Amino acid sequence: MPLDHIYERMSAAIAALSMDAVEKANSGHPGMPLGMADVATVLFSRHMKFDAAAPDWPDRDRFVLSAGHGSMLQYSLLHLLGFEDMTLEELKNFRQLGAKTAGHPEYGHAKGIETTTGPLGQGLGNAVGFALAEKHLAARFGSDLVDHYTYTIVGDGCLMEGISQEVISFAGHQKLGKLIVLWDDNNISIDGRISLSDSTDQIARFEACGWRTMRVDGHDMEAVDKALTDAKGSDRPVLIACKTVIGKNAGDKAGTSGSHGAPLGSEAIAAARRALGWEYGPFEIPDDVYDAWRSAGSRGASERAVWEERHHGSSHKAAFDEAMAGDVSAAIRALSDHAREAASAAKAVATRKASQNCLDAINAATPLTVGGSADLTGSNNTKTAELGILDAENPGGRYIHYGIREHGMAAIMNGLALHRGVVPYGGTFLVFSDYMRPAMRLSALMEQRVVYVLTHDSIGLGEDGPTHQPVEHLASLRAIPGLYVFRPADEVETAESWAVSLELQAPSVLALTRQSLPAVRADASENLTRKGGYVLRDAEGAKATIVATGSEVEIALAAADNLSGEGIPTRVVSLPCAELFLKQDGDYIADVLGTAPRLGIEAGIQMGWGELLGLGGTRWDFLGMSTFGASGPYKELYEHFGITAKNAAAKVRSLIKGNE
Amino acid sequence: MPLDHIYERMSAAIAALSMDAVEKANSGHPGMPLGMADVATVLFSRHMKFDAAAPDWPDRDRFVLSAGHGSMLQYSLLHLLGFEDMTLEELKNFRQLGAKTAGHPEYGHAKGIETTTGPLGQGLGNAVGFALAEKHLAARFGSDLVDHYTYTIVGDGCLMEGISQEVISFAGHQKLGKLIVLWDDNNISIDGRISLSDSTDQIARFEACGWRTMRVDGHDMEAVDKALTDAKGSDRPVLIACKTVIGKNAGDKAGTSGSHGAPLGSEAIAAARRALGWEYGPFEIPDDVYDAWRSAGSRGASERAVWEERHHGSSHKAAFDEAMAGDVSAAIRALSDHAREAASAAKAVATRKASQNCLDAINAATPLTVGGSADLTGSNNTKTAELGILDAENPGGRYIHYGIREHGMAAIMNGLALHRGVVPYGGTFLVFSDYMRPAMRLSALMEQRVVYVLTHDSIGLGEDGPTHQPVEHLASLRAIPGLYVFRPADEVETAESWAVSLELQAPSVLALTRQSLPAVRADASENLTRKGGYVLRDAEGAKATIVATGSEVEIALAAADNLSGEGIPTRVVSLPCAELFLKQDGDYIADVLGTAPRLGIEAGIQMGWGELLGLGGTRWDFLGMSTFGASGPYKELYEHFGITAKNAAAKVRSLIKGNE
Repeated sequence: MPLDHIYERMSAAIAALSMDAVEKANSGHPGMPLGMADVATVLFSRHMKFDAAAPDWPDRDRFVLSAGHGSMLQYSLLHLLGFEDMTLEELKNFRQLGAKTAGHPEYGHAKGIETTTGPLGQGLGNAVGFALAEKHLAARFGSDLVDHYTYTIVGDGCLMEGISQEVISFAGHQKLGKLIVLWDDNNISIDGRISLSDSTDQIARFEACGWRTMRVDGHDMEAVDKALTDAKGSDRPVLIACKTVIGKNAGDKAGTSGSHGAPLGSEAIAAARRALGWEYGPFEIPDDVYDAWRSAGSRGASERAVWEERHHGSSHKAAFDEAMAGDVSAAIRALSDHAREAASAAKAVATRKASQNCLDAINAATPLTVGGSADLTGSNNTKTAELGILDAENPGGRYIHYGIREHGMAAIMNGLALHRGVVPYGGTFLVFSDYMRPAMRLSALMEQRVVYVLTHDSIGLGEDGPTHQPVEHLASLRAIPGLYVFRPADEVETAESWAVSLELQAPSVLALTRQSLPAVRADASENLTRKGGYVLRDAEGAKATIVATGSEVEIALAAADNLSGEGIPTRVVSLPCAELFLKQDGDYIADVLGTAPRLGIEAGIQMGWGELLGLGGTRWDFLGMSTFGASGPYKELYEHFGITAKNAAAKVRSLIKGNE
Repeated sequence: MPLDHIYERMSAAIAALSMDAVEKANSGHPGMPLGMADVATVLFSRHMKFDAAAPDWPDRDRFVLSAGHGSMLQYSLLHLLGFEDMTLEELKNFRQLGAKTAGHPEYGHAKGIETTTGPLGQGLGNAVGFALAEKHLAARFGSDLVDHYTYTIVGDGCLMEGISQEVISFAGHQKLGKLIVLWDDNNISIDGRISLSDSTDQIARFEACGWRTMRVDGHDMEAVDKALTDAKGSDRPVLIACKTVIGKNAGDKAGTSGSHGAPLGSEAIAAARRALGWEYGPFEIPDDVYDAWRSAGSRGASERAVWEERHHGSSHKAAFDEAMAGDVSAAIRALSDHAREAASAAKAVATRKASQNCLDAINAATPLTVGGSADLTGSNNTKTAELGILDAENPGGRYIHYGIREHGMAAIMNGLALHRGVVPYGGTFLVFSDYMRPAMRLSALMEQRVVYVLTHDSIGLGEDGPTHQPVEHLASLRAIPGLYVFRPADEVETAESWAVSLELQAPSVLALTRQSLPAVRADASENLTRKGGYVLRDAEGAKATIVATGSEVEIALAAADNLSGEGIPTRVVSLPCAELFLKQDGDYIADVLGTAPRLGIEAGIQMGWGELLGLGGTRWDFLGMSTFGASGPYKELYEHFGITAKNAAAKVRSLIKGNE
């Protein structure tokens, strides 16, 4: 069916709203919406499966604007399609405080925004996660319930970021045939022509990674339509390179980086209106165009109704709904049992191994978890017996070999979590959290339940040396708002940390040891980790309190023994999650910390400890690291860096003297 | 010339030493050294230009072991080649505390180790930086003085990491023909066969990025020799895919991930000795093999002597030596002048623009600086008039369009700095420091003078919203040991920060504003930033001290005005670099902070401030951010998040009340 004039008017409406909103905000990125309006018009009016009246329909196609600076493209679309909460008023308030129309698309601000984008390449990674979730859930529940595409618009920036290679090669390996990437191939980046910085043959690059590729003129709507139709039959992910003109029609600015990131100004806007034949005022949309867009927005209603009937009659209904609700209560109960068993067994164990024992319980209790590792499976202890390998041949498997792709793993896990239906966790070494930090930050900003299993959590990893030894990482992860960092001291605390991680609507880090730790918790009747910190061992008339985490709790207990033996009764507080502890009420915090001088012990830097230890103006000191680590057997490293019970006791003695 | 039996024995010596050292340490990675011993033998005995007796020869070929876990390959080579400080004793102390033979190669531990590797992909990025430095310096000084190759051995892990795509595409674009990458193509990663996680056609991928590619059998030394000879004539960077067997000859473990990261055990070692025909004991090297390797190690001596004659007679000698010494004292003097001019002009200016003014002075005063930006040139204000564009056609240029490749930029800058001859700086938004954090950490670990120009340093960037607004980044960067974070408050402090950054043998971050700031420093006779913090405005009988950085110094001054007006004399301390401040002697720190209650103000999280403000047990409070930011005009955001002079004054009043 040839595309007629109304499609051009529909596209012009996106362009006009985008220009107008950026102009009114006096801030924003008009170039991309003008360049991709034609492609987006075809995609949303003829291909995307969705119903604007039911934006949460689980089997909708997913759309990700990876080139998030072009946010007005998405906002214009949502408004024109009739998504209820994207009013014209919101468009007029583009980039204003409190508006749904933030500078970049923000997950949770409005329906139809599937993920937060802006940091380049992340949306592409999320899209791979969406497509992977779809394939996995289709294997589990059948195509009656799960059968949708994932579309994403990416720019040159997305493709130049390294994360793109990780997720492109992963998607090719996994043969994610229902992932369709529309590349806004406009030859322009902020600094100017792409040829200033890049000569990559992107088509050849994607093909090298196992993708199907096509090229179209992004302003030839019939060609775009045909390409999308073709793409939907692929058994491999598809790249459609859409040759476009950035800032199309915007006078002298068209085709230049001048249209990218600033208002076009009245002259270029007038030129664009003339070129588009758009005779309407700012934010004015004629009825025929609204009608055409609204009809596109409700195009999927009947298909949705049919799906709902299928869903209602499906034997999978209960399990499907439970999956989409993310209900893992059975796993949390299993962890509670496991914690009690661990308390009575009281075995010395590395917390990474304790975590694997927890995962045995979790993965047997719920089918929702999908685990993986960035090529450190045996070291991260992330694989359990229940999980088949999730790959192109076995999409129903639940364990993913992410390859040496930490950043991609994290962005894909964000996509898995946002899709709903699975609960992702993934492992690497704690030090390599640096490689995936941009995606971890987005887990936190979007409040997604993604569990990062980060082992080898200190100099305790030993011989691999300073490049592999985290020193600043506990602090730098705690610094991310909304991310919860757990550092359990034994198997009971590990089980408790896992349970809280699964309860939270937020991302968590489990920082786990390579080396074995003694059991410190004899009683698991209550999940004390839920409070973040608690009195592990009290001492009558305590003259000091030692607060420690993870592997240093053992040292704290030994120091307290020594001190008590010499008449300095010392309380020991275990602090598996500082963020949760500081969220407790002030009385609890004050009770736990007590009023005696305090020593913090952690095999990491001091940053952040002073605030906690000094609460209420009490004297404090800290024993930890202030430099990078070194290569050597780990017990020697603890001695070398002075993180010992002997030094802890000495510091406590000094604190007490200073207090007298 | 066909390779004879001695080369096989030379290769066997690498394998034997590597196995023996890992076995003795009971820790390490034997698989890679065994797999790449043949390739390394050919490279070091017939191609690498170097002189073991003069490891600092500026025109030596550079070798980077990007697959750093194979460190024993490099240590064995250095020992066998006769590098003086790599004794047999060091090999026997592999991975022991204090040994030069750390778990992964550490820059500075021993001569011949050009960079610290281990975190995958970083070495490849450094190698691109080495090759870029060579090309740039050859353009500046001529091939008489600068004419060397850069070789690097990479593994599958290096190629799967996203950073590899950034630097591969960059190297292809820059046509770095003297970069030769040897890929240890062994089909194995830690989790098992590469086919578990990847199906990429690496040859096609590199060709898509503009590289020349070759395939060889990595155990056919004549073929490797021929490939290396061919590679040296290329006008594009070269990938040589060396098909190898990981853990070659090690019995059942050969060809499996079982040989990758653990001692082989006596049985596999015996099998390997048999297969290699190696009848010597652990760490025993027969004389003929030592002789052959030592002769390879001195092979470059005559070429070096000839180079030294050329150098001695060169008209470029003084400039070349100054460049290699990294002498930028003229730029530091120019900054001192600039600071004085800025102090008398007292203009309001965004510190990113102030930084550009500083760069005008720096880049005119020294030819050593090589600047760039990850596609935010106009926003980071990193380009000045003196700098031509450094690209394939103009390698003598001094400004690099790095493209949207933050991580690659940072790793390349490490390579530029390590090469010597240039002083690199590069820009992006502060929030995107997350993208390059693994490479920044290595700048710090290696103590390299790399200047990170990170603009848009707070919610002050406004409408782009929380994905672009750093909140935790000042804290998380200060957390990295050995990295200096500067946040200047006006143009004088910006000039001072630049000067200190150029003085330090360490990496620096300049955190700079998008928005305009008033001048706060009237006197630039002394570089006060060198002390990290100082009393900006004193108040007789001060009842409070406000400590602030960057854009919040203005707020501190306004609050102090208000407070002084109501009879609460308030001191204001500017803290452009907390790390430097805390390195001053205790008296200075105590004098600056005073004993009155203290308020810290920074548009970031509190983490780390408590330790500083609470020094000496003084009462303190903090005004800043505790959540992610939001999209909106920046002045509204400051109001919304309460970072205002009014709130600052209120907090000071409460502090004082609490103190009474």
